[in-house]
Amino acid sequence: MRPAALIFDVFGTCVDWRTSIAREVETVLPQVNALQFADAWRAEYQPAMERIRSGNRGYVALDDLHRENLAIVAERFSVELKDPSDLAGAWERLVPWPDVVSGLNVLKRKAIIAPCSNGSIALMTRLAKFGGLPWDCILGADIARDYKPKPLVYTNCCAVLRLDPAQVMMVAAHNDDLLAAAGCGLQTAFVPRRREHGPDQRTDLQPTGNWTVVAADFMELAQAI
Amino acid sequence: MRPAALIFDVFGTCVDWRTSIAREVETVLPQVNALQFADAWRAEYQPAMERIRSGNRGYVALDDLHRENLAIVAERFSVELKDPSDLAGAWERLVPWPDVVSGLNVLKRKAIIAPCSNGSIALMTRLAKFGGLPWDCILGADIARDYKPKPLVYTNCCAVLRLDPAQVMMVAAHNDDLLAAAGCGLQTAFVPRRREHGPDQRTDLQPTGNWTVVAADFMELAQAI
Repeated sequence: MRPAALIFDVFGTCVDWRTSIAREVETVLPQVNALQFADAWRAEYQPAMERIRSGNRGYVALDDLHRENLAIVAERFSVELKDPSDLAGAWERLVPWPDVVSGLNVLKRKAIIAPCSNGSIALMTRLAKFGGLPWDCILGADIARDYKPKPLVYTNCCAVLRLDPAQVMMVAAHNDDLLAAAGCGLQTAFVPRRREHGPDQRTDLQPTGNWTVVAADFMELAQAI
Repeated sequence: MRPAALIFDVFGTCVDWRTSIAREVETVLPQVNALQFADAWRAEYQPAMERIRSGNRGYVALDDLHRENLAIVAERFSVELKDPSDLAGAWERLVPWPDVVSGLNVLKRKAIIAPCSNGSIALMTRLAKFGGLPWDCILGADIARDYKPKPLVYTNCCAVLRLDPAQVMMVAAHNDDLLAAAGCGLQTAFVPRRREHGPDQRTDLQPTGNWTVVAADFMELAQAI
């Protein structure tokens, strides 16, 4: 069954967060190793969300978690930031992988396309304007007020679109994201991004589940559905 | 101050609901006066939302209210519908006023543009695909889980975009919508739609408040900001 909607992981799947963040770090903090700083900042991402997923903290938008995590990492690298919110805004200026904009434009003619990201509506909206991502609407953590891979985030996307989970396909470069979506009854598409974490990446090089579709990029995905 | 985001009323302001609904009624129910049926259906809109605004009923998406109201009106017109959800779906197929798509495309280059409608995310998403409305994201009742003109709906749009109300402009063809938005500190733009209710329209022919901008259409609005 062709999905009525495709919902997308964004960081890593649609955009190259690592080199985009590193480029901005390089400008603002020329004294640090920019890729290491980017990796360290991103490494705080899961623990920060886990406190919210586990119920130890109420919902806080990712914009604020990025700011808090930046303060942690800046201290660890012994650097002081004149304008932390300027660098935190780098998450709104991430460059899409080369196939993404053209692929999404084809997919948009076939189905509803929306992010199902842990990024907020504000962040996803500005990121889409920056990169030209032609979303039909913005879904994800900010509407569910919880973070992936909690099932609520996936089921909320379907409910908001008034679709059954089987009518919706989750697209991600991360097997764990697809596993959680499949557990909610969604269709799944794996699009590997083997350089998301740089040349030495060891994770998510291959599909590890029986996903509905495996495609080399978004153009191939558009042909497959 | 140029607004960072413009949020729009949709039914009446962006799209011509009356003739669009009447056209579909004409096809499905050739025995009734289609414009009268459309007006009667729309007349149930405010009372249905008022039960929710007043707290007498929990939040129910407008898609469901449209279906309930259709049943009421069909009974009043003594007609039986073979497929009520097909006609209820007519609210997803409303034709934009002629200046809207081109105006929004210009505005989109200057600011974030989003509906702040009482329509659900599902309804607004499908309506945008039908009419080519190039929204950056979908805001409104479905996120606030309450209906305009309750202040929460306007303030929620600003909060979700992480903007102060003074950075956001509400655009509407209805003075009462702008009055509520201005009360929350938003900028306001009045764009009259003098044929929304047909040739004999008596309401909202002129601005009745001191709105930030008054523009003849969306192209003029785009030039004004």
